[in-house]
Amino acid sequence: MKKRYITVLLLLYFFLSPIFGWAQRALYLDQSQPIEVRVKDALSRMTAEEKVALCHAQSKFSSKGVPRLGIPDVWSSDGSHGVSDEKLWDEWNSAQWTNDSCTAFPALTCLAATFNPKIAQLYGTSIGEEARYRNKTMLLGPGVNIYRTPLNGRNFEYMGEDPFLASRLVVPYVQGVQSNGVAACVKHFALNNQEIARGEINVNVSDRALHEIYLPAFKAAVQEGKVWSIMGAYNKIWGVHCCHNDILLNQILKNDWKFDGVVVSDWGGVHNTDEAVNGGLDIEMGTYTNGLTTQGYFPFSSYYLADPFLKGIKSGKYEMSKLDDKASRILRMIFRTTMSANRLYGRFVSPEHSDAARKIAQEGIVLLKNEKQFLPIPEGRYKKIAVIGENAVKSLIVGGGSTSLKAAYEISPLQGLKNKYGENNIVYSMGYASGRPLYGAEEPSKLKLDSLQNAAIETARQADIVLFVGGLNKNYFQDCESGDRKSLSLPFGQDKLIKEIQKVNHNVAVVLLSGNAVLMPWLNKTKAVLQGWYLGSEAGNALADIISGEANPSGKLPISFPKKLEDVGAHSFDQLCYPGDGNNVYYKEDILVGYRWYDTKKIPVLFPFGYGLSYTTFQYGKPAVSSKTITAADSLEVAVSIKNTGKVAGKEVVQLYVSDETSSLPRPIKELKGFEKISLEPGQEKTVHFTVTKEDLSYYDDTKKEWVAEPGKFKIMIGASATDIRGVADFNLK
Amino acid sequence: MKKRYITVLLLLYFFLSPIFGWAQRALYLDQSQPIEVRVKDALSRMTAEEKVALCHAQSKFSSKGVPRLGIPDVWSSDGSHGVSDEKLWDEWNSAQWTNDSCTAFPALTCLAATFNPKIAQLYGTSIGEEARYRNKTMLLGPGVNIYRTPLNGRNFEYMGEDPFLASRLVVPYVQGVQSNGVAACVKHFALNNQEIARGEINVNVSDRALHEIYLPAFKAAVQEGKVWSIMGAYNKIWGVHCCHNDILLNQILKNDWKFDGVVVSDWGGVHNTDEAVNGGLDIEMGTYTNGLTTQGYFPFSSYYLADPFLKGIKSGKYEMSKLDDKASRILRMIFRTTMSANRLYGRFVSPEHSDAARKIAQEGIVLLKNEKQFLPIPEGRYKKIAVIGENAVKSLIVGGGSTSLKAAYEISPLQGLKNKYGENNIVYSMGYASGRPLYGAEEPSKLKLDSLQNAAIETARQADIVLFVGGLNKNYFQDCESGDRKSLSLPFGQDKLIKEIQKVNHNVAVVLLSGNAVLMPWLNKTKAVLQGWYLGSEAGNALADIISGEANPSGKLPISFPKKLEDVGAHSFDQLCYPGDGNNVYYKEDILVGYRWYDTKKIPVLFPFGYGLSYTTFQYGKPAVSSKTITAADSLEVAVSIKNTGKVAGKEVVQLYVSDETSSLPRPIKELKGFEKISLEPGQEKTVHFTVTKEDLSYYDDTKKEWVAEPGKFKIMIGASATDIRGVADFNLK
Repeated sequence: MKKRYITVLLLLYFFLSPIFGWAQRALYLDQSQPIEVRVKDALSRMTAEEKVALCHAQSKFSSKGVPRLGIPDVWSSDGSHGVSDEKLWDEWNSAQWTNDSCTAFPALTCLAATFNPKIAQLYGTSIGEEARYRNKTMLLGPGVNIYRTPLNGRNFEYMGEDPFLASRLVVPYVQGVQSNGVAACVKHFALNNQEIARGEINVNVSDRALHEIYLPAFKAAVQEGKVWSIMGAYNKIWGVHCCHNDILLNQILKNDWKFDGVVVSDWGGVHNTDEAVNGGLDIEMGTYTNGLTTQGYFPFSSYYLADPFLKGIKSGKYEMSKLDDKASRILRMIFRTTMSANRLYGRFVSPEHSDAARKIAQEGIVLLKNEKQFLPIPEGRYKKIAVIGENAVKSLIVGGGSTSLKAAYEISPLQGLKNKYGENNIVYSMGYASGRPLYGAEEPSKLKLDSLQNAAIETARQADIVLFVGGLNKNYFQDCESGDRKSLSLPFGQDKLIKEIQKVNHNVAVVLLSGNAVLMPWLNKTKAVLQGWYLGSEAGNALADIISGEANPSGKLPISFPKKLEDVGAHSFDQLCYPGDGNNVYYKEDILVGYRWYDTKKIPVLFPFGYGLSYTTFQYGKPAVSSKTITAADSLEVAVSIKNTGKVAGKEVVQLYVSDETSSLPRPIKELKGFEKISLEPGQEKTVHFTVTKEDLSYYDDTKKEWVAEPGKFKIMIGASATDIRGVADFNLK
Repeated sequence: MKKRYITVLLLLYFFLSPIFGWAQRALYLDQSQPIEVRVKDALSRMTAEEKVALCHAQSKFSSKGVPRLGIPDVWSSDGSHGVSDEKLWDEWNSAQWTNDSCTAFPALTCLAATFNPKIAQLYGTSIGEEARYRNKTMLLGPGVNIYRTPLNGRNFEYMGEDPFLASRLVVPYVQGVQSNGVAACVKHFALNNQEIARGEINVNVSDRALHEIYLPAFKAAVQEGKVWSIMGAYNKIWGVHCCHNDILLNQILKNDWKFDGVVVSDWGGVHNTDEAVNGGLDIEMGTYTNGLTTQGYFPFSSYYLADPFLKGIKSGKYEMSKLDDKASRILRMIFRTTMSANRLYGRFVSPEHSDAARKIAQEGIVLLKNEKQFLPIPEGRYKKIAVIGENAVKSLIVGGGSTSLKAAYEISPLQGLKNKYGENNIVYSMGYASGRPLYGAEEPSKLKLDSLQNAAIETARQADIVLFVGGLNKNYFQDCESGDRKSLSLPFGQDKLIKEIQKVNHNVAVVLLSGNAVLMPWLNKTKAVLQGWYLGSEAGNALADIISGEANPSGKLPISFPKKLEDVGAHSFDQLCYPGDGNNVYYKEDILVGYRWYDTKKIPVLFPFGYGLSYTTFQYGKPAVSSKTITAADSLEVAVSIKNTGKVAGKEVVQLYVSDETSSLPRPIKELKGFEKISLEPGQEKTVHFTVTKEDLSYYDDTKKEWVAEPGKFKIMIGASATDIRGVADFNLK
């Protein structure tokens, strides 16, 4: 009997082995071997030169594989919300290919606003398919730096102000990307919370704030998402650049968290061979090469981890084990991606991706105000809808720095609205102009702006209603890499323009496209406000879906909208707290970031974290807890019923906050520790269940250097936003 | 019992299915399905636009896949003896990458000279590995156009003058390439036997010569090699361009030969949409796009098989079945290559490839003359060896047209000889200069040439021996695409130079590097002559191996070396026979190409086809045949013993020629129908066995349009070359 089984197995082996090529291949090529065996085998065949070649760029977006052994080069691509076009070998310029126009997905603030891990999974899977089709090893995203100040030019690339929200979304995103055999690359590790002086600034932050606020999303990506690569940040911590920071990379990431993937530098984030060798970096990218530097010409072979590394290995200055560790990590990533027999083929600019982009956008758009159900606007209600504002027509996919995309298409808000309401019912006037998205580009002249404004006012006067589509854009000093915003206000005279419009037309709705909070001095006289983020290729369609009511808004703010800049934690102290003195920045607000700050300091906000309206209404039941007393070994079950009390189907994000009432260390008034987005038909009621564990009750104790769930009284708050608590339940931790 | 088997199989299926992703995938992605099922499924999902997009270039070297369905683009690369560097999207210029410097293998004339199918397999496997590592779908080679005239600038890319030799070598080459999941692309189908007027010339050739001489290597590639793609030729036959020639492509290739792969045009070889649609072309490449043509600007979408094809499909002018057939063939190729689960990873510039290149070169170098065992030259025999000639230092990898390569390295003959004999024993003088390899580039001045010659003569005078390394090169009007040679003589004053050198030094050996036969007016006074072809990266090492005796030459001429140009069949008639009148060329020599001509016409040659000396000697026994009479259903066994009668090990190519003594149609005196390269230690004797079948006795009957083995008397000739017959045996075909 057994013999026959073995015969079958052997026959199958011989039948299948040509498929895998098992018989003929070296161990490292044998897909039936565990990856660690393959890594070890490949490493044992490599010269020091070949190992070093793995550790630094050979072009703007690639590093070498081991050609002799058939191990492919590593190709990476920006970015978090679309796969970039191909670039020239050693220039930032496009290679001018015509097969690389991608689907642009909404920026990650929009994903965060969905409060929906399933949408994050869809997002990751879809963008991962695009990256796979383009044969990338590594997709340079997602970004999960915490939103500390609304001025940060790169906030639009990240997932908001709350570490729990970012953690729950980064995990499925990473898993989705990596299901395609493409490494996600979580960035920027860590504390790259501003663009001003990002290359040199040393972030001074408490261990507690580091672990409670700034690291959790990275930790979740590593430990739950099993992310295969991570990108170092430009800035310093503890006086050392993050891209080669021994404590951050070796101790926390690789030792404590057991990260077995690749640390890649941000482009140009490496500064020193000794630190790069010993500080946990694996691949050096983007170090300046073009022409002369103050140190002379700097080709790829002069990279800190290139010839100087090899020289140090040969002289014995650096241990071979350091090199072996880096090479092993890179090989591991290659075996997981481009050399995985598992790898699917991906797809590119498919209708499924357009659907995904539209769905993400629909679920991320946040309805901030809706006086007397001004929205939705059914087709046919108004004869003449004035669309005003540059963002109704401006590309918001291009610009913004490294996330700038060459997209297959972009449906502008104006086009989306025309598609929905008919060409004849829409009149458009630009109203303002922002100039070209280049650093130092000329601003539009005062004369031009006045003329644009006058035309828009005239258009508004003659229309039934006005949809003002404005916000920020991807120009420098707006939502753009390499600089921070200069003000919390809307730019380009929009506030004045909106007010002028409101003088001639009382039916004004404002759609804000931005990755950051802005001030709204015109809010009182505005009938409705939508926060629309950067919505990608399907922007116009998704906005029209929401405005027309074909989709019911269900996004919630992943960031607080403050009433004024000085209300923000990071802006409540001195210049050293933000933006620092060029050398140092001090996170004086400590753990009180975002709603933790406003809550604890009792500062009212314009719109709170977790906030967002719907075209329907939801009634929350009283939360029920499974026990009044638990131990650290237990978990607490929380149940709360939600009912759709309005007339249309809708989705609600039920939020669970925990409040520690008797802590020996100061804690925020409340912290998000659970959320669930549920879909309810009119009149339908569902019960949402949460599980609260010891981890959800813990704080990070700086002195003990560990997470502590301190016995005492806790409060569970169930809310529709951070300030709209609908029910409370108490319990004790023993 | 059976149940348990099924259980095991089901368990294995569930265990393995995630590896293949069987469960989740669409039929066309299911690797367990037959390719035809996958092709049909993919096709059924595609729009007409998507199908048409498959059929024409999107860039210089790529055509579209189906991004929406995850079907990759098709990327091709020149060429037959190395994988080209990456090019810019729509320019011929290099993209300036640094990871694409390949191993240059010897040119295909050298492979032909090995007379060794095992070496052809090694060649194909090695170059296929390089193409696979570079992720190419298609390698644009090998070229198997028959050597009709020694003036053809592209002869060096092909496999010589004999259809049987080319057939036996193209099959393992193709199989080797394709074992890597890369499609070989046999070219140029057919009759591209000259470069003059290649784009328009109409070749007038008898059906018999077509089938007996010009098609057999293609047919073998298709029917035995199972080649996945084939490239059309620039020229016309029957008044129609070969790239869209209904008889050639639909009738002969696809219908008669059952070719199921892709016909790709030569770059710029398409001229007409109707013909391209109906004439059997599948992918149109290289049609002029840059800027204005007489018809206006011509982008990729204006390709004959792009918008005009789509328009014709939509209007009903062209049948959808034509498009479906093309698309199916392209999908089939993609599933066989980039979408094959079987696909290995290849490797690039590995020591194994260098070894292969060196081995191919060693076995292909032909020893033409060796007076008084002048060669080999053991180390230490001479104190002062003069190396003279530009080809000792000139790159012969760069230039020549589309086969020009960016190689990882190139060991020049001078470097190889220095490595072997020691820097101090070698003196070098250039002797002549050929100018830059550009069309119309300035020639070196007379003054400069005189000065080079004088210096070389002085160098020769003071040396013990002279190794003159000359021949042709890859300049225009030498061995180079787009033009033919203007003369059979050596260029750049080499004949005069060699004669002058021979006046001051009697110990002169000449090494000719070329892809074509040349005249040798200095032959009598030359001690030794090596025909070295273009040898690739390992040129210098391989030559030094032969010259030093570390390797024993075993190459045989795959081409005849005539005594004068007028002796060549193609040059024995008028201008219409070669090069034609610009519109037509008439192959008046008909089937009498190469040795078939010289033999039949009793024209003595300088060196015959199949000729090549060794450092040892071989004694041939009398051939024995299995029967004196056979029927067409039988095969004839021929045995002949060969003995190494010299003092060193060596290899001999034993050649079997068939002569039809009583044919009703005129036939060549003899035709090669068997060869075997055997390796013999000194004193060793082996028996070589051949099988002669009906096919080997047949001619192509134009009137019957079929192959005929006509009963009558035949002669088997066993020879060491086409003119050195060592034994004969007769038999009758009943």
